[in-house]
Amino acid sequence: MEELTANVNALTVNANILWVILAGFLVFFMQAGFALVETGFTRAKNVAHTMLMNMMVFCIGAIGYWICGFAFQFGGVNYTYPATAISSTQASPEWAFSPITLGSWTDAAGNALLASPLLIGGNGFLGLSGFFMQGIGQSAAGILAFFLFQMVFMDTAATIPTGSTAERIKFIGFVAMSLWVSMFIYPLIGNWVWGGGWLANLGRSAGLGNGAVDFAGSGVVHMTGGAVALAGAIAIGPRLGKFNKDGSANTILGHNVPMGILGTIILFFGWFGFNPGSSLGIQGAFMNLAALAAVNTLLAGAAGGISAMTYSWLFGPSKKPDPAMSVNGILAGLVAVTAPCAFIDGWAAVVIGLVGGVLVCLATAWLEKAKIDDPVGAVPVHFVNGIWGVLAVGIFANGNPDTAAWNGIDTPVSGLIAGNFGQFAAQALEAVSVAVVVGGLSYVFFRVLNGANLLRVSPEHELAGLDLPEMGMPGYHGDGAYIPEAGSSRVLPGGSTASAD
Amino acid sequence: MEELTANVNALTVNANILWVILAGFLVFFMQAGFALVETGFTRAKNVAHTMLMNMMVFCIGAIGYWICGFAFQFGGVNYTYPATAISSTQASPEWAFSPITLGSWTDAAGNALLASPLLIGGNGFLGLSGFFMQGIGQSAAGILAFFLFQMVFMDTAATIPTGSTAERIKFIGFVAMSLWVSMFIYPLIGNWVWGGGWLANLGRSAGLGNGAVDFAGSGVVHMTGGAVALAGAIAIGPRLGKFNKDGSANTILGHNVPMGILGTIILFFGWFGFNPGSSLGIQGAFMNLAALAAVNTLLAGAAGGISAMTYSWLFGPSKKPDPAMSVNGILAGLVAVTAPCAFIDGWAAVVIGLVGGVLVCLATAWLEKAKIDDPVGAVPVHFVNGIWGVLAVGIFANGNPDTAAWNGIDTPVSGLIAGNFGQFAAQALEAVSVAVVVGGLSYVFFRVLNGANLLRVSPEHELAGLDLPEMGMPGYHGDGAYIPEAGSSRVLPGGSTASAD
Amino acid sequence: MEELTANVNALTVNANILWVILAGFLVFFMQAGFALVETGFTRAKNVAHTMLMNMMVFCIGAIGYWICGFAFQFGGVNYTYPATAISSTQASPEWAFSPITLGSWTDAAGNALLASPLLIGGNGFLGLSGFFMQGIGQSAAGILAFFLFQMVFMDTAATIPTGSTAERIKFIGFVAMSLWVSMFIYPLIGNWVWGGGWLANLGRSAGLGNGAVDFAGSGVVHMTGGAVALAGAIAIGPRLGKFNKDGSANTILGHNVPMGILGTIILFFGWFGFNPGSSLGIQGAFMNLAALAAVNTLLAGAAGGISAMTYSWLFGPSKKPDPAMSVNGILAGLVAVTAPCAFIDGWAAVVIGLVGGVLVCLATAWLEKAKIDDPVGAVPVHFVNGIWGVLAVGIFANGNPDTAAWNGIDTPVSGLIAGNFGQFAAQALEAVSVAVVVGGLSYVFFRVLNGANLLRVSPEHELAGLDLPEMGMPGYHGDGAYIPEAGSSRVLPGGSTASAD
Repeated sequence: MEELTANVNALTVNANILWVILAGFLVFFMQAGFALVETGFTRAKNVAHTMLMNMMVFCIGAIGYWICGFAFQFGGVNYTYPATAISSTQASPEWAFSPITLGSWTDAAGNALLASPLLIGGNGFLGLSGFFMQGIGQSAAGILAFFLFQMVFMDTAATIPTGSTAERIKFIGFVAMSLWVSMFIYPLIGNWVWGGGWLANLGRSAGLGNGAVDFAGSGVVHMTGGAVALAGAIAIGPRLGKFNKDGSANTILGHNVPMGILGTIILFFGWFGFNPGSSLGIQGAFMNLAALAAVNTLLAGAAGGISAMTYSWLFGPSKKPDPAMSVNGILAGLVAVTAPCAFIDGWAAVVIGLVGGVLVCLATAWLEKAKIDDPVGAVPVHFVNGIWGVLAVGIFANGNPDTAAWNGIDTPVSGLIAGNFGQFAAQALEAVSVAVVVGGLSYVFFRVLNGANLLRVSPEHELAGLDLPEMGMPGYHGDGAYIPEAGSSRVLPGGSTASAD
Repeated sequence: MEELTANVNALTVNANILWVILAGFLVFFMQAGFALVETGFTRAKNVAHTMLMNMMVFCIGAIGYWICGFAFQFGGVNYTYPATAISSTQASPEWAFSPITLGSWTDAAGNALLASPLLIGGNGFLGLSGFFMQGIGQSAAGILAFFLFQMVFMDTAATIPTGSTAERIKFIGFVAMSLWVSMFIYPLIGNWVWGGGWLANLGRSAGLGNGAVDFAGSGVVHMTGGAVALAGAIAIGPRLGKFNKDGSANTILGHNVPMGILGTIILFFGWFGFNPGSSLGIQGAFMNLAALAAVNTLLAGAAGGISAMTYSWLFGPSKKPDPAMSVNGILAGLVAVTAPCAFIDGWAAVVIGLVGGVLVCLATAWLEKAKIDDPVGAVPVHFVNGIWGVLAVGIFANGNPDTAAWNGIDTPVSGLIAGNFGQFAAQALEAVSVAVVVGGLSYVFFRVLNGANLLRVSPEHELAGLDLPEMGMPGYHGDGAYIPEAGSSRVLPGGSTASAD
Repeated sequence: MEELTANVNALTVNANILWVILAGFLVFFMQAGFALVETGFTRAKNVAHTMLMNMMVFCIGAIGYWICGFAFQFGGVNYTYPATAISSTQASPEWAFSPITLGSWTDAAGNALLASPLLIGGNGFLGLSGFFMQGIGQSAAGILAFFLFQMVFMDTAATIPTGSTAERIKFIGFVAMSLWVSMFIYPLIGNWVWGGGWLANLGRSAGLGNGAVDFAGSGVVHMTGGAVALAGAIAIGPRLGKFNKDGSANTILGHNVPMGILGTIILFFGWFGFNPGSSLGIQGAFMNLAALAAVNTLLAGAAGGISAMTYSWLFGPSKKPDPAMSVNGILAGLVAVTAPCAFIDGWAAVVIGLVGGVLVCLATAWLEKAKIDDPVGAVPVHFVNGIWGVLAVGIFANGNPDTAAWNGIDTPVSGLIAGNFGQFAAQALEAVSVAVVVGGLSYVFFRVLNGANLLRVSPEHELAGLDLPEMGMPGYHGDGAYIPEAGSSRVLPGGSTASAD
């Protein structure tokens, strides 16, 4: 009987871990989606540059996060899941801590693994243990899975600003930006909301609902990435030719719509790891939250696509179902539902998505009016809809009792519609904090980069395209089609004869 | 002991649900495969239009299915899995009902969630409860997962006719078609075979084997999608230039074979969710069925590719291993094994795939003779091989005892080779019903659309390509390669100087 | 209580199987990654040929492996996992055998399923049972899942040489090569290391550590595929124009860098099935190994990308962050960590990846000096880093106790740093055996193919591109962009008027 109980507990923990790593794999794959969306909706002369940024941001970010990002984010949490037990409070790692008892990770035997949170006024501000994952043994499958899952989440934030600075950022500047996000700015916010920091504890410390609640990161991930993207777009300035002398804006067409749409489908696919995976387990109520998150993610993404398509069809400049807007509408719906997906009913997910799809159309126009050039709409999608998503928790959270167990405290999460104003206040505080702190610090960071001449390529390189001067090879060669090599000569379809020199 | 038993039961149910949502995610990803296959094998001037149809069909279908499709399909099923228990009969949702007791979904506490089936002669015809998923609480993880899984299945059917009507359908006509499939015609057939309808009950009502058995939907999904595709292709007429005045057909080359092949690999990948996922659980015999379905899917897809490649190499017009035919052979094998995959031995999967690969080559020629223009072979792949797959259950089903438990009744599924004629008759009835009802009603639907001038674009737009007139932007810009922007001038590789105006 | 225990055991086994098939699906998807990397980094005139090879190698390989490959590889193993029990020794299929008791697979009831290993000197050399999977019933979910997982592993090896022989191999020669790998040469090595063969038993027979240990196949898969690739590249000779008369080499640019990078991200994604999936289960210590493998895979791939990017930036011919090298550096890190990923600490994974990324840059230069033309770097990535990975087990294995249970014997795996020289010797023997046997036999195989004029296309076809002469259709049509069809005339953006004949 004891052995059987132990077997069941072990299997339960391992099933939780399996779900976390599988979801993490899906989130990793979003990298391909970001790469394709950003590359497809920018110009052909920069494709190698844009694609490689999106590939290398993972590599650079992974090592940066391993060195110190993870330690800053979670090194102050009393984190025992899922090494020891499966009670509901322990099984909810991001919330199951008290700021009073911050301090140690323990392995299955209860030995402390990590220590030394940095506290400010009794609330966590930054973790300070677990650098290079030191102190984490190879038997700690749960912590390893958690590291993997959090690493790919960070990477999602880090890859967002490559979109807003695309087609003009130096590759060395991109490398610096990747380190900035992975090693410091994302872990800072991640600590505040998910790592035992002060925003997470606004419920206990200030009586504001459950504190800032952000199920899968509309704020932590998308607002953070979007705020860096906004700061970067302002600091680096618009692409040559984007704005005319009279202040009007030109449309710079992307070179490959199918590539952008493929990327969107991949992102949607990965989002099913992103949102449902944030249950961090399948036992008990966690499975309910994961399945609910999956359906709400599906509904909000679909609704966002429909509203943006319809809006552009009825009111857009082309009066057509604009592919770029439709795609961004889908992404807007997904971003907006990321924070509330496990706390709301299906109808609310549809509403959130519909609003998100319109917001992304409006925000795109706002940005152009403000003369900010964001080639692929990173700010409208991630920053603006990240705000909308964070606030949506405070509006639509339905008080589902499952969220109480998951939250590690007694009160379910509920929002304005359920009559709870405190939660909305906590959400607003999260949104303001992320916007101000990430946006402000990142703007300083980009100005310093710019001062060191590491941010923007020369006008000659920008006009010529970044692939040859920055990457050393053309992204496309041979006109993308079957073309005679140098020295050969053959007949092309249609009867014309091509001869290479 | 009681608590332990409850924990084990809960974990078992949650493991089932985990499998269902993971498989559903894979099926969702098939959307990318369809998009790429259809776009790669059509022309460059229509790529934004073809890709966006394949993206938006998901968005539109998801909301349509949420509004009423799911209610029509499953709103008449006494559906208790997996909210309450794990006995084998309850755990097989699609079959574990009696037409006598149709009527209510229950949550974990046994409360009715849905009601009101529409009965015709004692057999289900259409469900009438669960609109907008009303009555389904957020604690019903099983039903949520089931909704997600069924929604992406529907979407697979809905996306098929975008292939047969590609390069000439109006976007507004596509929107109407998406609603037609997601809100009505697919749920109708889905009810008959999987939702407690009359085809599923042919065993009880007419003594025909286990009634129509369609493990993962050769009939429900692929024949349905294929029949809509056939009706659409006939109603919309061939593309300009496809057929000559003497009745002979021209080959209209696709613009991007790698895109089509990438799509095929993605579809194959997604099929591992489609077929094995249709076990709807991993407990007990369900895991056997899922693993068997996975291996048979692998074998049949591979065999279909080999036979189509070999057929085109030996007998095709080019006497080469034709890429388009090889790809469609793989898809043909996958479609054909979809219904029988969990009921047959490996050798039968190979035979089914080999036949499917040849069928797709033959059917492609038949369609051209009938002057039906199906740009990407949606009808040969999905309709013709859907029929073959539905019948194959009635031929090759091997009486594996595991299928009895899963089927919720006592008799294993067996076909002609095992001496059971009744099952074959039930399968034939499914095939005929889907072909006649879906094909007929959809043809009427398309004629009405056409009458309202909502179906086909103008010849001018068709010749010019649909991307600018229908979508408002070119799908490819800058010739797909790195090309000087307006106003700049630079040297291309090879020494020629390009100058933009 | 007995029923409960049985339920728990069954659920545990099924959870293991679920993990194995899910990981197998991810490995299958790597096919898309290989296809895109190989096609993107070669020329546009050969894209249909290169893509279809990468698609059909799966089809051909699947059937070949089903016919005899699986039987040769595993038909000599006393393989009871996971049909019957969950004790740790039985649950580790690849190791849980004794060469003395080789002989039978058993189903859940203990009935023998397979038999007849071929023994040489008491050590397995080749299995001889299970052809066409005969004797494996449909209730044996574990064996079916294991077949699927091993089939897609084999396919990874089979697809590697399509890269080194790309742009000049006849399609019929490719078909023969696929059969060679899937039906014989891979199963031979697979038997030696994973199927109870003599390399696996070097611990028992010769006292060399745990015998050759290759967690996920740096040697079995990547060295084998890489050795075939090397033999093929030598036998088929360089592409026309690759080397000048004075012996210097020309760079032949790939046509589509984004395609290659997308393929790399897909491969990285699939590797999360490849490496962690090789735990073959999630129960107990297996989950630890899987999670550890996942994190180490992530770290090594990232480190490989960073070191190759940095190396090419500082020392490469272009003095830029070369996209092709960065991509191959990532793949190099992934290949190198494949064997040791479950046996090492995170820092070691980073070191292995950093070294791998530099190795791939150096080996690319070595190959060019040796006048061997390997268009996409299959040999530097898979062969050279496969060797590095096999040896790395013997250097960095940290004696983690989890590896003992998994290994089915009492001693954990440990390497030079832990003071164990025997393990390093076993690893060196694996590396030498694979290089000599696979390389040698494959070279003979390719020479025979060449003698029969089945290996290399004519110079005319090579210059023109293989798509039309070998596949019968252009891979790209219409210049990859929206282009007027024959007979139409319209205005292109920019004002120029295009008129087709």
